[in-house]
Amino acid sequence: MTILGLKEAEVAQLVRAVTPDQPGIDLQEIEIRFARAAWGGIVEPGDSAAGRVIEAIGPVRALVALHEKWPVDRLVEECAGGVAPGEASSGIERWQPRLHLDASVLALRQATRYGVRFLVPGDPLWPEGVDDLQDHKPIGLWVRGTDDACLSLSRSIALVGARAATGYGEHITMEASAGLVDRGYAIVSGAAYGIDGMAHRAALASHGQTIAFLAGGVDRFYPSGHDALLNRIVERGAVISELPCGASPTRWRFLQRNRLIAASSLATIVLEAGWRSGSLNTAGHAGDLGRPLGAVPGPVTSAASAGCHKLIREFNAICVTNADEMAELAPLPAAPASGAPEGDSGGLDHTAEARVREALSTHAPRSAAELAARAGLSVADVTAQLGGMELEGTVRERNRGWLAVAPEKSASSGEPEEEI
Amino acid sequence: MTILGLKEAEVAQLVRAVTPDQPGIDLQEIEIRFARAAWGGIVEPGDSAAGRVIEAIGPVRALVALHEKWPVDRLVEECAGGVAPGEASSGIERWQPRLHLDASVLALRQATRYGVRFLVPGDPLWPEGVDDLQDHKPIGLWVRGTDDACLSLSRSIALVGARAATGYGEHITMEASAGLVDRGYAIVSGAAYGIDGMAHRAALASHGQTIAFLAGGVDRFYPSGHDALLNRIVERGAVISELPCGASPTRWRFLQRNRLIAASSLATIVLEAGWRSGSLNTAGHAGDLGRPLGAVPGPVTSAASAGCHKLIREFNAICVTNADEMAELAPLPAAPASGAPEGDSGGLDHTAEARVREALSTHAPRSAAELAARAGLSVADVTAQLGGMELEGTVRERNRGWLAVAPEKSASSGEPEEEI
Repeated sequence: MTILGLKEAEVAQLVRAVTPDQPGIDLQEIEIRFARAAWGGIVEPGDSAAGRVIEAIGPVRALVALHEKWPVDRLVEECAGGVAPGEASSGIERWQPRLHLDASVLALRQATRYGVRFLVPGDPLWPEGVDDLQDHKPIGLWVRGTDDACLSLSRSIALVGARAATGYGEHITMEASAGLVDRGYAIVSGAAYGIDGMAHRAALASHGQTIAFLAGGVDRFYPSGHDALLNRIVERGAVISELPCGASPTRWRFLQRNRLIAASSLATIVLEAGWRSGSLNTAGHAGDLGRPLGAVPGPVTSAASAGCHKLIREFNAICVTNADEMAELAPLPAAPASGAPEGDSGGLDHTAEARVREALSTHAPRSAAELAARAGLSVADVTAQLGGMELEGTVRERNRGWLAVAPEKSASSGEPEEEI
Repeated sequence: MTILGLKEAEVAQLVRAVTPDQPGIDLQEIEIRFARAAWGGIVEPGDSAAGRVIEAIGPVRALVALHEKWPVDRLVEECAGGVAPGEASSGIERWQPRLHLDASVLALRQATRYGVRFLVPGDPLWPEGVDDLQDHKPIGLWVRGTDDACLSLSRSIALVGARAATGYGEHITMEASAGLVDRGYAIVSGAAYGIDGMAHRAALASHGQTIAFLAGGVDRFYPSGHDALLNRIVERGAVISELPCGASPTRWRFLQRNRLIAASSLATIVLEAGWRSGSLNTAGHAGDLGRPLGAVPGPVTSAASAGCHKLIREFNAICVTNADEMAELAPLPAAPASGAPEGDSGGLDHTAEARVREALSTHAPRSAAELAARAGLSVADVTAQLGGMELEGTVRERNRGWLAVAPEKSASSGEPEEEI
């Protein structure tokens, strides 16, 4: 650490203070954590070149490279094909001017003042979902909140939407958030005015877990009008950002923050969104990640629902109208009952089959590709599951795709009630 | 005709009176038309056994068979495999007790009083769409209205929905009907209270064509509260039924009437429907026929939109929010402009390609099966079109299906406007 010109003892003390539950970490681990914290202040979120360099030579050596001003050739060579020369060159141009290790130490000190903790990939509290972002995954995450809230991300659904929400939008968000909490989900959102704020509030009111991802440092809440709300989330949930303390939110950071909302949760649901709402960006990230995407319809006469309808029409979002339908997008494994589950062939296979089953309809034939999109599985996995299910007689293939076979036929099925 | 014990001269006069634009039809043609009219009074709508017998031996000989009480064996033999013995046997049991040719003459006489005309398959005014019903197609159609209205069925869209409509439902139906009329469509519906009535009214108010299909005879309007509306439709549009004059609507006839609404129009759109609305039955017919099906979303808090959301979620209905999106479901061939269209490779091929193009998205990959469902084409036709379009570079295949290639990329695409 001395080569970076910092006081080892102070840095070690600060890193230990923000590292959860690992009092005995050694100097090498401290270097790694400090380097990741420093990188988080050097790059803008989602910088894939930085992600690849850090992946190739580790965060410490990557920081040394920057500190020692390695020529591009040397960096490319050490990365052994992990990064292209042009990319490394433009990366260094971006990163070099922002290498201020003193600022990284200040950010760490500020973090200790606010009880902020710093998570790195592989930590027990690290949300595994964000690893699906690959080169774009966060280098580290700053957290204010409880361990339980961090762990609850593995069973979370993101509820997002417009700041300019209507009474209708707020009402359905409240119902959705409370309903999903009742069904065992944690609620992820972005702490903005409108839909986001209502999603967090209703989760808290229902004594559920809720997690807010911010576009700036977790020491400075944005929007400031949500100070009280964010303080309550810190107490009973978690406020998370990949930006170090002191960082301001920017337009780019909001867009990248949205990828964390989509990646850290099992499914994303847009409750109300105008034609160009930022929440459509979150929906786009969910789609890119293959995460189930839902949208709540509203009056076609309401501009605040136009984005939701666009998602349903053009982005294959599933139309969801209540908490049950939202939960169907990301079924939780059944709570472990007292006694071993009967006839369960176990683990992953069972889950994949359950997801294919959820994606099937008894009425509308669906292709393997469509089922894959709905189930968030690969076409190959879906095809494999369908083969087994066809043998069991629980699905059948029709001209236009696959149908679930209803367990028993209701005599009055499909009969309308209204006419005559 | 004498073998049926009727007065030839009277029957000939009545049949001529209800036959549009064919003053010189001969006795053979009169027999055929009378037999079809009589069969319409004998069978319930959609009787496929009757459809097959009539297809196999013609309506006149089929009527003779009933009149002369042929044994089942003889009927099956003459139909030469067109009908199964069990089917013929139960058919005869159904039809025999309802063979009252005097009643058929009375219905014809009543038809002449109301200026009703009787159409049979192949007539210039016969709506070709209903032929897609195959064995279930109507044996004949009774019409009160204009020739133009009958012909306009080839460019019609069905707007249907609940009788218990809300103000929201009536508002969007008015906008949809007027908007589609402005775009050159005729409006088909069922003359019921609520959505149906509003669809007809708005079409009339926009000086468009509108056609009402009834579940009973066209001499007795149902519901009676829509007497004035139906009279206006007769004057400027058309009221059509497969039931002869004097027939009452029944539950079964409403359900079968719905198949005519779906089959005679290019696409069906459900504007507002409760969870068990009769309009879902019309939607089911449209789906069975491979006709494009649209549903208008509404507040998830409104029970009157629950059926529409169910159609979008479970029956692959396309979410449509305005007249433009509804028109996309069934694009009309461009109006013949002054001067030949440039670079048009002509007729059907062009139409199929246009429909595939409409069904593609630039964002959401769609499988050939899904495109077929959206375009109302067979999977084979869609695959053939995609092959040509891929060569042209206007589509490309992705992991999960086909994407349209956007003509030119907008620099600001996808950027949200709202945040920060």
